[in-house]
Amino acid sequence: MSQPARVGILAGGGPLPAQLADVLRKEGREPFLVGFRGFADEALLAPYPHEMIRLAAAGAILQTLRAQGCRELVLIGPVLRPSWRSLRPDAEGVRLLARLGRSLFAGDDGLLAAIVRLLEEEGFRVRGAHEFLGTAQNRSGPWGRIAPDHQAMADIRHAVHVLSVMGPLDIGQGCVVQNGLTLAVEALEGTDAMLHRCGSLRQDGAGGVLVKMPKAGQELRADMPAIGPVTVRKAAEAGLRGVAFPSRLTLVMEPDHCIKEADRLGLFLYGLEPDSVFYKRKKDI
Amino acid sequence: MSQPARVGILAGGGPLPAQLADVLRKEGREPFLVGFRGFADEALLAPYPHEMIRLAAAGAILQTLRAQGCRELVLIGPVLRPSWRSLRPDAEGVRLLARLGRSLFAGDDGLLAAIVRLLEEEGFRVRGAHEFLGTAQNRSGPWGRIAPDHQAMADIRHAVHVLSVMGPLDIGQGCVVQNGLTLAVEALEGTDAMLHRCGSLRQDGAGGVLVKMPKAGQELRADMPAIGPVTVRKAAEAGLRGVAFPSRLTLVMEPDHCIKEADRLGLFLYGLEPDSVFYKRKKDI
Repeated sequence: MSQPARVGILAGGGPLPAQLADVLRKEGREPFLVGFRGFADEALLAPYPHEMIRLAAAGAILQTLRAQGCRELVLIGPVLRPSWRSLRPDAEGVRLLARLGRSLFAGDDGLLAAIVRLLEEEGFRVRGAHEFLGTAQNRSGPWGRIAPDHQAMADIRHAVHVLSVMGPLDIGQGCVVQNGLTLAVEALEGTDAMLHRCGSLRQDGAGGVLVKMPKAGQELRADMPAIGPVTVRKAAEAGLRGVAFPSRLTLVMEPDHCIKEADRLGLFLYGLEPDSVFYKRKKDI
Repeated sequence: MSQPARVGILAGGGPLPAQLADVLRKEGREPFLVGFRGFADEALLAPYPHEMIRLAAAGAILQTLRAQGCRELVLIGPVLRPSWRSLRPDAEGVRLLARLGRSLFAGDDGLLAAIVRLLEEEGFRVRGAHEFLGTAQNRSGPWGRIAPDHQAMADIRHAVHVLSVMGPLDIGQGCVVQNGLTLAVEALEGTDAMLHRCGSLRQDGAGGVLVKMPKAGQELRADMPAIGPVTVRKAAEAGLRGVAFPSRLTLVMEPDHCIKEADRLGLFLYGLEPDSVFYKRKKDI
């Protein structure tokens, strides 16, 4: 009895895993979700075939994925780095942790890249969530009715410069610039929390811009920058004028809804040419 | 009738201006404070001779400083960049703004350096607050009873690296690193707000460290990194293990009180050799 080829989703926290499952269904691919206990929100996974498993129960995870006929995998949704004490790996987990070896002590990027490598060695094909999202994601330039003006474009370029220089430091994927002044830089708190504090940091004059982009050397298949309608709303609440991101390297969830919200709130959504964003990376790496 | 040579303090917000006035008095120098209206807290300046003046009333400011016999000036305490609308410069202010010229559109560092240059052209000697604080500030190594362990030293080095790379971006003077992971990077929100969010970003394991240091190319006489007893307490509340800073390039307010608080709360205070901090700067600038 052969099962259909499924896409396995290794699900961390937040709404992205369920949203990706929804996208896959609409495209006729049946997803199977492994929700990491303590991180994934089971209520959100409930409409889809899923199982909740401890992060370190690697044996159980691989067995489940194989039993469910998953050959392709997507890692999506935040997983805070767990403590050694709380990990309690199963037998397979101990073996895999040993194989990760020194990467466990590297920054997030190094660890995630090692996990992707390891899953591929185990026979899975690890894909980026963006690969399932269709060509709507590939547009560069304004996505909605509003386009950035001269000052906003200058702020976008400055933010890209800031994130390019910071990229190799493996810190964050976002920053907010207003009239040349960097209001906030995202680290572990995440984009929403950063946007929240920008409300009170706002200076007089035209509002700032949020730019999100991958860190230099980042494993896109494990930790891709993402924006969604909530990002657009929080950017508006913080008094920003728009959001920019490199097309094809950013996961835009519910793009039509994002555009509708941006148009309604008077913000721009701006897709950057990936090449224009990474002029710094090549030099810095 | 000759007046004694006074030190003029151009006072922005927060407790630093009054604390500096107190230090000066204890060393037998009489301070005179010009509190910038809307930024300085007059209640804190009240015990000292002072006047509250609008930031852009440059004519009134220079006249007052001269009438009070101030020949040396210290700029201290945060002043958010005001809007053009709200400035309303007086006649002298218009003249000085014109002299600042393009610097007005530079980042904070460029603008502050230009203001210092301008005050010196007006015949004042602009000094760094640290120059009045005595040799107690020059110690490198642990200031209190507690010394950073091996992991904390590694985190300090990593934070210094992060701030060194970010320095030329003119963003912030502080970051928090825990076991190699950058929890937070300071931008416009300031150190206290950054420490506040670190409480919830804390990972399992040994606590992180706060490092503060000047940005590359920063005009130390206008915007010197500062720490004080509040910094120590907030670092403790965020679960950090200590605070490190380059000696002689950081304004440690109430150093004895800082050490007492650090000892009481079990934190280290660690003075870095300025040279060790800036190995990156020379290359990056």
